[in-house]
Amino acid sequence: MTSPSLKAESTDLAAVQAQVDLVLHDFLDTKRRGAEDRSLPLDVAATLNDFLTAGGKRLRPLLCVLGWHAAGGHGDGTAVVRTAAALEMFHAFCLIHDDLMDNSATRRGQPTVHRLVANRYGHDHLGASAAILIGDMALAWSDELLHSAGHPPHRLAGLRRVIDVMRQEVIYGQYLDLMTPLGPLTDHEAALQVIRYKTAKYTCERPLHCGATLADSEADLYTELSRYALPLGEAFQLRDDLLGVYGHPEATGKPVLDDLREGKHTVVLALAAQRADPAQRKLLDTLLGTPELDHDGAARVRAVLDATGARATVEDMIATRYAQALTALDAVPCPPPATAALRHIAARAVERTS
Amino acid sequence: MTSPSLKAESTDLAAVQAQVDLVLHDFLDTKRRGAEDRSLPLDVAATLNDFLTAGGKRLRPLLCVLGWHAAGGHGDGTAVVRTAAALEMFHAFCLIHDDLMDNSATRRGQPTVHRLVANRYGHDHLGASAAILIGDMALAWSDELLHSAGHPPHRLAGLRRVIDVMRQEVIYGQYLDLMTPLGPLTDHEAALQVIRYKTAKYTCERPLHCGATLADSEADLYTELSRYALPLGEAFQLRDDLLGVYGHPEATGKPVLDDLREGKHTVVLALAAQRADPAQRKLLDTLLGTPELDHDGAARVRAVLDATGARATVEDMIATRYAQALTALDAVPCPPPATAALRHIAARAVERTS
Repeated sequence: MTSPSLKAESTDLAAVQAQVDLVLHDFLDTKRRGAEDRSLPLDVAATLNDFLTAGGKRLRPLLCVLGWHAAGGHGDGTAVVRTAAALEMFHAFCLIHDDLMDNSATRRGQPTVHRLVANRYGHDHLGASAAILIGDMALAWSDELLHSAGHPPHRLAGLRRVIDVMRQEVIYGQYLDLMTPLGPLTDHEAALQVIRYKTAKYTCERPLHCGATLADSEADLYTELSRYALPLGEAFQLRDDLLGVYGHPEATGKPVLDDLREGKHTVVLALAAQRADPAQRKLLDTLLGTPELDHDGAARVRAVLDATGARATVEDMIATRYAQALTALDAVPCPPPATAALRHIAARAVERTS
Repeated sequence: MTSPSLKAESTDLAAVQAQVDLVLHDFLDTKRRGAEDRSLPLDVAATLNDFLTAGGKRLRPLLCVLGWHAAGGHGDGTAVVRTAAALEMFHAFCLIHDDLMDNSATRRGQPTVHRLVANRYGHDHLGASAAILIGDMALAWSDELLHSAGHPPHRLAGLRRVIDVMRQEVIYGQYLDLMTPLGPLTDHEAALQVIRYKTAKYTCERPLHCGATLADSEADLYTELSRYALPLGEAFQLRDDLLGVYGHPEATGKPVLDDLREGKHTVVLALAAQRADPAQRKLLDTLLGTPELDHDGAARVRAVLDATGARATVEDMIATRYAQALTALDAVPCPPPATAALRHIAARAVERTS
């Protein structure tokens, strides 16, 4: 297996991304050959490889590597890149199960894993079952990547503590996401709690902490990184929620109707429901969460989000959180190239169209 | 949290089981209180606690503790019991996802997790999604149990290697189990491969290896333990397959029609299909894998298994493997109480009615 080495230029985000992708590809290629040798099914490794190469922002691996730099990490970063790759493999687990739970048909412009297998065999339940297992394997393999990264035992123990907390947080976040539609649509505090667990902690805070652990970071730095990561993560997810309603499928790779059809209780919908007049509220209650929702229906929901000012308020919330993240970043005592890269990532996460 | 200590009497299987159950209960109680403090849903920990206390043979935890004894482990076994509990928590993950994939309605005489949640909210897809997440959480928490067991770093590293291999094996086993029904029913080699991955390695071999690792076992002992564990595990699963067709639901806690309705390709069905005359073969092809299969249909399938001698052959296979396991056990140089307990477990696994 090729061992990419990570030098000073590793705040070059494109280079980090290429190294992470190489680790993932090599790992899955080894898994595919191992399966071949033991007459085991090849499509588990192959499907994961296709899934991972179809796209993705690699935000979590990048933040992991930058957390390492922020804490003064330098020199050979092979183990760091492998840890970053493990986070991406874990993310594949999350997305594959998430797509199944959300009944999503496409991801990254490709059929989702459960649809892919269901289409191949003409059997929906088989597709769902295969997606459960391929997701489970991604989780198991993310651990294997982590444990074979070459970390000294004391550092691995610290890293495992962060990873174990991260997993619990994201699974609780997903569970909250599943259950909030059973509560009132107006409850924007509930929608914010989902965002905090599902995204702010999982996508931003914990990857930075993972990286910082690998440079044996001081305790204070974790807190300082959290002050940057948590508002950034909230802004990231609020942007995601807006893209789920206003985005262009050719840019996001996801159908624009899914979130509305699924009836997710997002912050923007909660705000709209709070401010809606009776006619607007009736329209939201009638259209949201119905699998038959069409483009015309979506346009009418969007009109309510615009007219109630809910969309504008969420744009304000994104801007506020983005500013908070940048202010917090100025207080983090980390090397200037790491600061610059964290600033760049923040801009990309908040201003994106995909 | 109460710390059970494990002394010489830990080859007393009932005592080990009680200690494992206490660790699981205390762990989940701590998780429930932690969720309460952070306004997170309480039903994840509560559902897992109900699932784990509803029953289960605790075979994997017992084998883990006995693997430790076999390799000369003695004295304070707190970390060993916690590891054994982690294996049981991992098993909860396997079963919860397995029941969903198999569309099983009951387990241990109770509704399965997906049915429980579906019944509570009157929503099948919500039940399936909750079962995916509660299963995922069981996996995450099994790791937390493992990492907080107090193992010295070098031992934890060795243990993680065994656990990572075990997970890959059981997930491949489940994947094979899912896909074999797409192949010919007569392929009993495929059915045996499922058994090896899904059960022999996962249920018997790896738990023993986990325990042996915790006593810093010599390499030879792993091989010797495998010679006992693999035939035993095959016998265990062959018995399970027979109970799936011939068992009494009040003893097994599972509906007797599930395996036949699901159309699982088991060894006994493969042998029957190989030997069936055209009329018998037609009957198998018509009845197996149909959700409408009733008790009369099951009786007709059983008649074919009896008439073709497939049932008798599988009983012979169980007896042969049981004998192999016992012979291999005689060659394992381990303390007599551990040998006696392993002998007892083998008898229980093979001769059981539930």
